Amino acid sequence: MIYDTIAAIATPFGTSGLSIIRISGDEAIEKAAAIFKGKNLIKAKSHTVTYGHIIDHHKKVIDEVLVTVFKAPKTFTKEDVVEISCHGGILVTQKVLERILEQGIRLAEPGEFTKRAFINGRIDLAQSEAIMDLIHAKNVNAMKLAVSGLKGDLSKLINELREELLFLIAQIEVNIDYPEYDDATQMSVELIKPHVLNLIKKLNTLLDDANKGKLIRDGVKTAIVGKPNVGKSSLLNALLNEERAIVTDIEGTTRDTIEAQINIGGITLILMDTAGIRETKDIVEQIGVKRSKKAIDEAELIILVLDQSRQLSKEDLELLEQTKNKRRIVVGNKNDLTKAIDLDIHMLSLSALNRQGLSDLEHEITTTLGITDLEEKDFNYLSNVRHINKIKEAISSMNEVVNAIDLGLPIDMAEIDLKKAWQYLGEITGDYHPEDLLNELFSKFCLGK
Amino acid sequence: MIYDTIAAIATPFGTSGLSIIRISGDEAIEKAAAIFKGKNLIKAKSHTVTYGHIIDHHKKVIDEVLVTVFKAPKTFTKEDVVEISCHGGILVTQKVLERILEQGIRLAEPGEFTKRAFINGRIDLAQSEAIMDLIHAKNVNAMKLAVSGLKGDLSKLINELREELLFLIAQIEVNIDYPEYDDATQMSVELIKPHVLNLIKKLNTLLDDANKGKLIRDGVKTAIVGKPNVGKSSLLNALLNEERAIVTDIEGTTRDTIEAQINIGGITLILMDTAGIRETKDIVEQIGVKRSKKAIDEAELIILVLDQSRQLSKEDLELLEQTKNKRRIVVGNKNDLTKAIDLDIHMLSLSALNRQGLSDLEHEITTTLGITDLEEKDFNYLSNVRHINKIKEAISSMNEVVNAIDLGLPIDMAEIDLKKAWQYLGEITGDYHPEDLLNELFSKFCLGK
Repeated sequence: MIYDTIAAIATPFGTSGLSIIRISGDEAIEKAAAIFKGKNLIKAKSHTVTYGHIIDHHKKVIDEVLVTVFKAPKTFTKEDVVEISCHGGILVTQKVLERILEQGIRLAEPGEFTKRAFINGRIDLAQSEAIMDLIHAKNVNAMKLAVSGLKGDLSKLINELREELLFLIAQIEVNIDYPEYDDATQMSVELIKPHVLNLIKKLNTLLDDANKGKLIRDGVKTAIVGKPNVGKSSLLNALLNEERAIVTDIEGTTRDTIEAQINIGGITLILMDTAGIRETKDIVEQIGVKRSKKAIDEAELIILVLDQSRQLSKEDLELLEQTKNKRRIVVGNKNDLTKAIDLDIHMLSLSALNRQGLSDLEHEITTTLGITDLEEKDFNYLSNVRHINKIKEAISSMNEVVNAIDLGLPIDMAEIDLKKAWQYLGEITGDYHPEDLLNELFSKFCLGK
Repeated sequence: MIYDTIAAIATPFGTSGLSIIRISGDEAIEKAAAIFKGKNLIKAKSHTVTYGHIIDHHKKVIDEVLVTVFKAPKTFTKEDVVEISCHGGILVTQKVLERILEQGIRLAEPGEFTKRAFINGRIDLAQSEAIMDLIHAKNVNAMKLAVSGLKGDLSKLINELREELLFLIAQIEVNIDYPEYDDATQMSVELIKPHVLNLIKKLNTLLDDANKGKLIRDGVKTAIVGKPNVGKSSLLNALLNEERAIVTDIEGTTRDTIEAQINIGGITLILMDTAGIRETKDIVEQIGVKRSKKAIDEAELIILVLDQSRQLSKEDLELLEQTKNKRRIVVGNKNDLTKAIDLDIHMLSLSALNRQGLSDLEHEITTTLGITDLEEKDFNYLSNVRHINKIKEAISSMNEVVNAIDLGLPIDMAEIDLKKAWQYLGEITGDYHPEDLLNELFSKFCLGK
């Protein structure tokens, strides 16, 4: 036995129709059979369900259950897996779990099942992370990104780049191994440089697109700013009430002051600093010039609301100035009233009150973010910050290679950096995986996954 | 097709390792197969699991899933059932469900799966209710009660009583059918009365025990009262911090001002009027003489806290008077200080501060409630209010029978009430089930159950 047998509740905490306890490891089937009254689980075929009861040490029934047996290696973890489907009560599920743990089975760490799937080679690291991305997907596009990652599309892309790198490294190795040919070095460098530049270009394209990927995956930190009484709260409420806007306000997904998320045009806007918006319309109005400074700094998208029925005040001008270098949309609210301002920059005219111009705003949001008409290939975007950083490190190493070549340094210096780049890319799919990276990564997972 | 095909998410709402969507009905397998990429589900054997993907109408992957096929009649609903195990994300689960509903499958009402299990004759009504009791069980004893109900122990008990009633009714029918025998009436009444009295006795025993059952199932509304500064909050916190005390404070289970539940000695105390107790210790202290009046009226158990280091005040005496006819425990707190009071009633001496005497209090709670040393047979208790009311109605009808006999009314008058009693008992197991009773009952269930 390489690993011990682990168990955890794999469904969310709460009362429901049913809940699932997952057990994985060499002893999974045998230990489950020991507390099960029904047909012999040890004799059950893989991927079959058996009806019966979990019994306590007095042979009293704890719960009526369905037990599914999955035999290695065609399982989630590539180990023997047992899933027990209990009645979905908090207490009854806990009691069944306790009964399992009494058999000497250890409670799984968060993410430990997926970690085993990775360590046992069923999925790579990028795929493992895609599982978590899928579970936490905020919108349909983020879901598609994750599904694509889970299918291994991203891994395939990375592996192709690594193949190219490996080819270059091999070229250099040949060169080093046969130094007696004097002209070989020169030839090799000439051969390698354009390849390296081409690879850097590919990585940079990946990085450029990753920005979109990240916005799709993580949502866009958005600040709705404007001086009091321009209609920020009306706009927010209009957006929240739009039929297409799905508001998610799920406990546990909001960590700081973020209160509301809107899905709009396939993008999740994470509305900043909207604390209390649900309770009173006035509070958002108070986020005026002073408080908005911080929100402007942190936001990835700014919706600056002006009241177009009144002349611009000093506060409006300040906000226009503060946000001029940011990704912003200037909204001229109250277009149902006589227009009193004339800007030399683009202003989207709408009426939050009458819900006019909201679809234009939605279009402008996706255009501003560069996320319109997403195609299938777009769901190959890098989106995970860890992956993005690895790409950056790889690019940086590749640039070192170009420098080394340009400075006429020995080719084996360049080789070191090529190998580094190869390694960084490998860390995306997990071909290089320091133990603490794994621990940190998988600890972010759900229990039972 | 008698019923249409229904689907619902059967696991709690939230992010987790996995979530299950359940489909039941004639079209379950066929419709699931239509959106599934993998081996043909229609050819899958019952109780087997198939790996594959749920695909959208462009054949794009929505999620990687495991699909379990259960073929009628050996299923939860006695219909064809399909369970789809998705990645436990809120969005991805919803998308898979939407995809299923697009196939013309209807979203199930809460409890509809269990309702079908009942209507299709797999379980009776008392067992259906036991499922919900199991899911909502507050403590281990409540769980045992529910498991016993689910196994049909309660139904067996009720059916035995109904058999006895049926025997009596048959006797009377014989008597009515052969009225030419003048002496038959007299004989029959003589024969029937002791039987009826015996049955009433049995039903009353059931009813007496049901009080315990209800306390086990629903918990005990408990008020901790006392004037300010006697140490109510210290006592509460000491109880909450006891190793054996499991505090459940789950969203959705608390409907009104109830804030805390403690499991103590196998019983759940539902602590009344503890709003804010977590935030500040002072608030509970404010629940003094005035506010406690309401709590005292509503409570099923009162813990009256006195400060035994000080002489009894007017307020203490008022509280002692107010609670004298209630089920109460008088606690003399601060037994680490010199005793200054001398009561002629039993007072449990303890120190909340030093956590001394807490196990005595626990013992006194279970003794006061009459719930100590529960044995297996005790988990046959009636506990459901609906069942208890049906028993009461049956007893009332049976008393009418006795009256009729005593008044010398025609035996067929008695028969009407015997039949009524038989019917009331039948409503417990669902042998009589008006449609609106069913709708009301099952609407309290979870979605997906």
